[in-house]
Amino acid sequence: MGKGALALLVNSNQQNWSPPRWKARFEEVCPDRRVVLLPDPALDPAEVHYAAVWKPKPGDLAAFANLRIIFNLGAGVDALMADHSLPDVPLVRVAVGDLTDRMTEYVVLHVLMHHRQELYLRESQRAKRWAPKYQWAAGALTVGIMGLGTLGAASAHALRALGFRVVGWSRNEKRIDGIACFHGADGLDAFLRQTNILVCLLPLTPETRHVLNRDVFAKLNRESLLGAPVIINAGRGGLQNEADILRALDDGTLGAASLDVYETEPLPEASPFWSHPKVVLTPHNAADTDADEISKYVAQQIARFEAGQALENLVDRKRGY
Amino acid sequence: MGKGALALLVNSNQQNWSPPRWKARFEEVCPDRRVVLLPDPALDPAEVHYAAVWKPKPGDLAAFANLRIIFNLGAGVDALMADHSLPDVPLVRVAVGDLTDRMTEYVVLHVLMHHRQELYLRESQRAKRWAPKYQWAAGALTVGIMGLGTLGAASAHALRALGFRVVGWSRNEKRIDGIACFHGADGLDAFLRQTNILVCLLPLTPETRHVLNRDVFAKLNRESLLGAPVIINAGRGGLQNEADILRALDDGTLGAASLDVYETEPLPEASPFWSHPKVVLTPHNAADTDADEISKYVAQQIARFEAGQALENLVDRKRGY
Repeated sequence: MGKGALALLVNSNQQNWSPPRWKARFEEVCPDRRVVLLPDPALDPAEVHYAAVWKPKPGDLAAFANLRIIFNLGAGVDALMADHSLPDVPLVRVAVGDLTDRMTEYVVLHVLMHHRQELYLRESQRAKRWAPKYQWAAGALTVGIMGLGTLGAASAHALRALGFRVVGWSRNEKRIDGIACFHGADGLDAFLRQTNILVCLLPLTPETRHVLNRDVFAKLNRESLLGAPVIINAGRGGLQNEADILRALDDGTLGAASLDVYETEPLPEASPFWSHPKVVLTPHNAADTDADEISKYVAQQIARFEAGQALENLVDRKRGY
Repeated sequence: MGKGALALLVNSNQQNWSPPRWKARFEEVCPDRRVVLLPDPALDPAEVHYAAVWKPKPGDLAAFANLRIIFNLGAGVDALMADHSLPDVPLVRVAVGDLTDRMTEYVVLHVLMHHRQELYLRESQRAKRWAPKYQWAAGALTVGIMGLGTLGAASAHALRALGFRVVGWSRNEKRIDGIACFHGADGLDAFLRQTNILVCLLPLTPETRHVLNRDVFAKLNRESLLGAPVIINAGRGGLQNEADILRALDDGTLGAASLDVYETEPLPEASPFWSHPKVVLTPHNAADTDADEISKYVAQQIARFEAGQALENLVDRKRGY
């Protein structure tokens, strides 16, 4: 009966996550393999050898007894980790260069926006007020990056090239040329005490849930020309305590926040973030997935696997990312 | 009577151009020289050997018969070039690395803002609308930089590092690694036909006045995923025809504009730019002058000159920059 089928399961209401478009892309890169969109009541689950998924619900993959690999169509696997009935097969996280480049764009853009006082400048434009403020150099600020995987390291290098001082923090020890790296619970305070702009790119795990909280904000460095520190979260909404962010913005503990992710997505219309003058909000589009790049990557990984080679970017289920 | 005096003449109503602050800085870096602020009716003009100026009015420097060097406290010398009574002594343009870094920040920030659809995203936030649009990769756009001096070259490299395609244009032939460079009147159309985001960093001279005009806008490339092309002017206001920009924004020839400079500064309250939804406006602060860096630079140049060494960054008066 030929090669096992590739099942696609895409749960997202975002415009660029059209399941039929994904199917067409996968059919193009896996021309000799059947590609099915889940759910498909006519499908014999035993035929499915590979699954490529985005935000599956717990139990969605339990029926596929002959599954060999699960591919997660993005960097964050927290939705998969919450599924205790997930078949015990290798889990591959997509890490294409395109996704890294897009995240770097987002981080550089938002760091520059706060550094260059964009909130103040847009307000001045609305008020028709010609009132340039003193502008410090990039080297007057320290950007602290939480999460030093592929994404964090790329952002660190790009920011350093623009003249910012950059420090990093990760759970386990990492070394990045030219970046002072801190790690673990013991290294967190020293990292926060230097940081004027905090960029969060951590994976969401039970340990990192609500890592962006009031205690952390209070430890950030307020001594720079920026004044009150700024946070940028492009990781996952579950990393942030949203009530703490609002309180910290309102009492001056934080000067501003750029948020791409939220505890509930889409962000409910009732959220105070929408109209908060110190919040720069984007609809979880910091690092859009490019269907072309990702479908090619999955096809390559399947080919490697069937040729007996090792898989790349395997998720460590114990660690959770 | 010791060393000749250094005269400071600063005509600017911008907050960060406080003449007494400049005087204090120069007294610090030239401890054994008299520093005077112009105008000073008690001063004997013959005592002045050096002048450090910003936007002098025609005639302001004519009386100083023993002037040896004029230092312009920024990169653009157009205000000086308009003074036909300027003493015929070497004219040195300040070109400190700090100014280049600040301009690079501005250019990278504004290119990223248009590339990442910031105008749309801010409008969505105001409307409390979660509506991510398709986001292309940086490599889908070509940024064209007019002016390939120190500032243009630095911006070109920074944009290329972020994944943009970059082309350049200059009056005379220039070569920059990895950047397709066009030059002269003959090269302009080929440059414009590729350009999706046009960044103008040209000096203002009689030849470049109103180089940003309707004919140029109509030749820009509209075929990218950005759609209508975008202009960014961080050079001088005289480079742009403001009526042409407004018409082009309104009829769709241009998709948006980031403007830091204007034909009249401060921008008059009646200007339609203030409230135009497609204009991102800043109050001529793209590359603020850092008084510390610049006063040090001037002191170094005077020391070089008095030791018989060649001056750096001499302005070619015929060329006008």
